[in-house]
Amino acid sequence: MQHSLLDDLIQGLRGLPGVGPKSAQRMALHLLQRDRAAATRLGELLVETMQRVQHCTQCRIFTEHALCQWCADDDRDGSLLCVVESPADVLAIEKSTAFRGRYFLLLGHLSPLDGIGPKDLGLDLLKARLATGEIKELTLATNPTLEGQATASFITELARAENVKVMQLAQGIPIGSELEFADGGTLSVAFSKRSEV
Amino acid sequence: MQHSLLDDLIQGLRGLPGVGPKSAQRMALHLLQRDRAAATRLGELLVETMQRVQHCTQCRIFTEHALCQWCADDDRDGSLLCVVESPADVLAIEKSTAFRGRYFLLLGHLSPLDGIGPKDLGLDLLKARLATGEIKELTLATNPTLEGQATASFITELARAENVKVMQLAQGIPIGSELEFADGGTLSVAFSKRSEV
Repeated sequence: MQHSLLDDLIQGLRGLPGVGPKSAQRMALHLLQRDRAAATRLGELLVETMQRVQHCTQCRIFTEHALCQWCADDDRDGSLLCVVESPADVLAIEKSTAFRGRYFLLLGHLSPLDGIGPKDLGLDLLKARLATGEIKELTLATNPTLEGQATASFITELARAENVKVMQLAQGIPIGSELEFADGGTLSVAFSKRSEV
Repeated sequence: MQHSLLDDLIQGLRGLPGVGPKSAQRMALHLLQRDRAAATRLGELLVETMQRVQHCTQCRIFTEHALCQWCADDDRDGSLLCVVESPADVLAIEKSTAFRGRYFLLLGHLSPLDGIGPKDLGLDLLKARLATGEIKELTLATNPTLEGQATASFITELARAENVKVMQLAQGIPIGSELEFADGGTLSVAFSKRSEV
């Protein structure tokens, strides 16, 4: 059987997260039949993005510039720093909160068993940045998992050593949820941290 | 705010069928974080496929060669032709049936209201092929919709004019389904075409 570019493309599309064989086939045929110009543009964008997008030298967020859009933005408050695990967290915080400081991206969490130590999370970079004295308040927005919380503790130590105030996100019952379905840990935290109305 | 290649890529990925803003973001970040080589290869494949893949000159299936893999395969029975509406139909038939003839791809169905006439479906090409006398049996595998059936009738006329035998797929209750949920039209056809066991 002769080689087929279309088969290669379907195989390539299966590499996207959440795309199975049927979806990949549907995508490839859709692009060929209806949207060749957009598909070509998407292809060029993929090549260019993978080639040019690196990490912001200051906060490790993905960007094709030396500084990401937040680090480069002088309107941002440089004294506030929010530490997150993944780039998606940055986008989520930007979308839903009024935070106007800058970010620091860990790209993971401490996990000694997987060989992921402080250096892999760029914590030497973070430490150097805290040492400049520019940052007054550091907000920990790591995931409320065991590993996320261990990572947060480690960073808390770093920040305290530089006399930087450390904040963490409020924990409790999520808005719009039902008490009945809240897990025990969450309910327990929410109860012990109850506040006067 | 500075221009961001990552935003462009997320926007580009949203052009894929079935991909919303959240999935597009997840795909872009996944590729950047874990699979830059595969993403670059996918990008190159997209560009190359859109540029080089055209229609088979004989049956209109997508291919980067003059003849598709089925038309070029001498082991296929050239006297059997199966007419389908979309490329996905070819792949489905190849996967599940023992058909070893060749295909003809309509890339749609007759739809006078949308201005889709016989010429848009390549029926002049089909007619010329039937006229060569090479084809002895034509199987209609258009969709069992109103438009698909109208298209099938039209092709039946073409084939009869050239004395080619015309077959259609069996219609009835799908395997693995429940009678209770079969639609009335299907049940009625299945009943009137009942056969002795």
